[in-house]
Amino acid sequence: MAADEAGAGAGGRSRVTITDIARRAGVSVPTVSRVVNGRSDVSPGTRARVEDLLRRYGYRKRAVAPGRRAALIDLVFNDLDSPWAVEIVRGVEEVAHAAGVGTVVSAIHGRSGDARQWMRNLRARASDGVVLVTSALEPVLHQELRILGVPLVVIDPAGSPALDVPTVGAANRAGGMAATEHLLALGHRRIGLIAGPPRLLCSRARLDGYRAALEGADVTVDESLIVPGDFHPESGFAGCEALLDLPEPPTAVFATSDQMALGAIEALRRRGLRVPEDMSVVGFDDLPEVRWSAPPLTTVRQPLADMGKLAARTVLRPAQDEQSDTSRVELGTELVLRSSTAPPPKTH
Amino acid sequence: MAADEAGAGAGGRSRVTITDIARRAGVSVPTVSRVVNGRSDVSPGTRARVEDLLRRYGYRKRAVAPGRRAALIDLVFNDLDSPWAVEIVRGVEEVAHAAGVGTVVSAIHGRSGDARQWMRNLRARASDGVVLVTSALEPVLHQELRILGVPLVVIDPAGSPALDVPTVGAANRAGGMAATEHLLALGHRRIGLIAGPPRLLCSRARLDGYRAALEGADVTVDESLIVPGDFHPESGFAGCEALLDLPEPPTAVFATSDQMALGAIEALRRRGLRVPEDMSVVGFDDLPEVRWSAPPLTTVRQPLADMGKLAARTVLRPAQDEQSDTSRVELGTELVLRSSTAPPPKTH
Repeated sequence: MAADEAGAGAGGRSRVTITDIARRAGVSVPTVSRVVNGRSDVSPGTRARVEDLLRRYGYRKRAVAPGRRAALIDLVFNDLDSPWAVEIVRGVEEVAHAAGVGTVVSAIHGRSGDARQWMRNLRARASDGVVLVTSALEPVLHQELRILGVPLVVIDPAGSPALDVPTVGAANRAGGMAATEHLLALGHRRIGLIAGPPRLLCSRARLDGYRAALEGADVTVDESLIVPGDFHPESGFAGCEALLDLPEPPTAVFATSDQMALGAIEALRRRGLRVPEDMSVVGFDDLPEVRWSAPPLTTVRQPLADMGKLAARTVLRPAQDEQSDTSRVELGTELVLRSSTAPPPKTH
Repeated sequence: MAADEAGAGAGGRSRVTITDIARRAGVSVPTVSRVVNGRSDVSPGTRARVEDLLRRYGYRKRAVAPGRRAALIDLVFNDLDSPWAVEIVRGVEEVAHAAGVGTVVSAIHGRSGDARQWMRNLRARASDGVVLVTSALEPVLHQELRILGVPLVVIDPAGSPALDVPTVGAANRAGGMAATEHLLALGHRRIGLIAGPPRLLCSRARLDGYRAALEGADVTVDESLIVPGDFHPESGFAGCEALLDLPEPPTAVFATSDQMALGAIEALRRRGLRVPEDMSVVGFDDLPEVRWSAPPLTTVRQPLADMGKLAARTVLRPAQDEQSDTSRVELGTELVLRSSTAPPPKTH
């Protein structure tokens, strides 16, 4: 007879607790719990003594209510390597926690093996929904989620997402326009842009906004002022150096992520150039720390925590109808003026 | 007879898939999944049609292997409001993911109601372990974890933790000494310190290290040079202002968190003081972004991701014996020299 079945038929008679058993066995409460839960990490002698006591005192393990499942949603990043990620986690967790749902955070590093391992784990834990950040899953994994009936929402889709997946993003094109129009209004005409990865929709939309703003102001787009980046600070540093090395450098830089803006500011500092007196810099994201960059960064705020909240609400809500599964939501972006922009220097 | 039991006895005969059923019913695959999984968010008419087809074609839901549980650990923060948090998540997730275990991230905001809600959720999901970051649980919740037999590890304990809980921290006192000794070696004698919350062990240990280094160099500790802070940037800004307003300001500031160091640098910038020419600043943490502060920050590195990894390994390892449950591990800290420190200005 297994230990944890021993008292099953004893009805109200059995009042012995795990603490009583631990005291009588002369072991700790966790040790008794391990025995009760059938874990292997207890010495044979201790296990025998505890099991004997459990039987003698008719201990009855509290049953988990039948049909009760752990409520969980999965939040999946490519990498957990940016302060950006914690903002999204914060939003998702807040909504999930309020709904009594746990948030399982994973990083799949864009690796097929990691994604498949994650999918196996997702099945085992019977997750109630998936919020996928930026990254793309292989079609076969998308299909598997569909078959499992697990709702999926993509935050900031990498490319054109499958037609039947709802997405939450930010108004990246409008944000790119606002950043560029701000620099134009200050009098800048040669405005450099450090781009994000071209495979990402958000990168392309920010660049589109930049082009649209320049065209709206009758400023010809100079392609030499557009340099590549990958959203990380190192690429902002390198991109800004490339712009400074042009025969005719820009007077302002629109770094399309805050982290690249920090890299750009460091490149300027190393050359003895002041921000904003010698060069204006605008970022994109409004990460909490850029309020404390030197100087505090003018940037385009995208509401990352709100994007997380909306994504969590979307996967957790009962599907009202089939249409609700294909929504495309863009939350608004907003230019936040701080101290990193000014009119162009007179000497230019 | 319930729909998902219909084909249970049909053995190898049943080859119908959920996709077949969806096609025949003229609904989507997720809708069929919802019916199969007993969810309520399907219209009665659709449900009846799908259930009829499931019965007719003998659909058999894949059974979850008996005894198979979702492997999960819970990672609990007070707040998800710092880039600090993502470093810990990254470390915990890496180890858990490799072990096929999900990482459930929660914030309890130091609120009793949130902590109790979290505990109810933890029970429901049968979590295999808990990593608690900095925050303290009420004794009754600690006791509940013990009774559930769920292993607990505390990262960076807030105060003296219960004797039977293993902890993972950083060598905060040694780090505080190293930061102060570095400033002493540069020739500074008036060194300000912006402290962390006094209730936290790590705050007190960093301050102890500062005092010990000064005493080791025969420099009398001037208590007016020690100002309060809470690890957030705003308090670093205010603390640095207080130091600058002293009749005899320091020539260097040891901000005991990176975020406070960023606030201090901003306070200096606003007064037109240069770092490090006019004032040296040292931080504590080595968050990824301080490589890109202006100037890049000299700081004490605490291995946050490694602390997360070790904590995850500790909760996931089989308990070898009772002693292993009470380990106290301090991972080493290391001074990282960048550009925010220099000898004191000649004019002082």
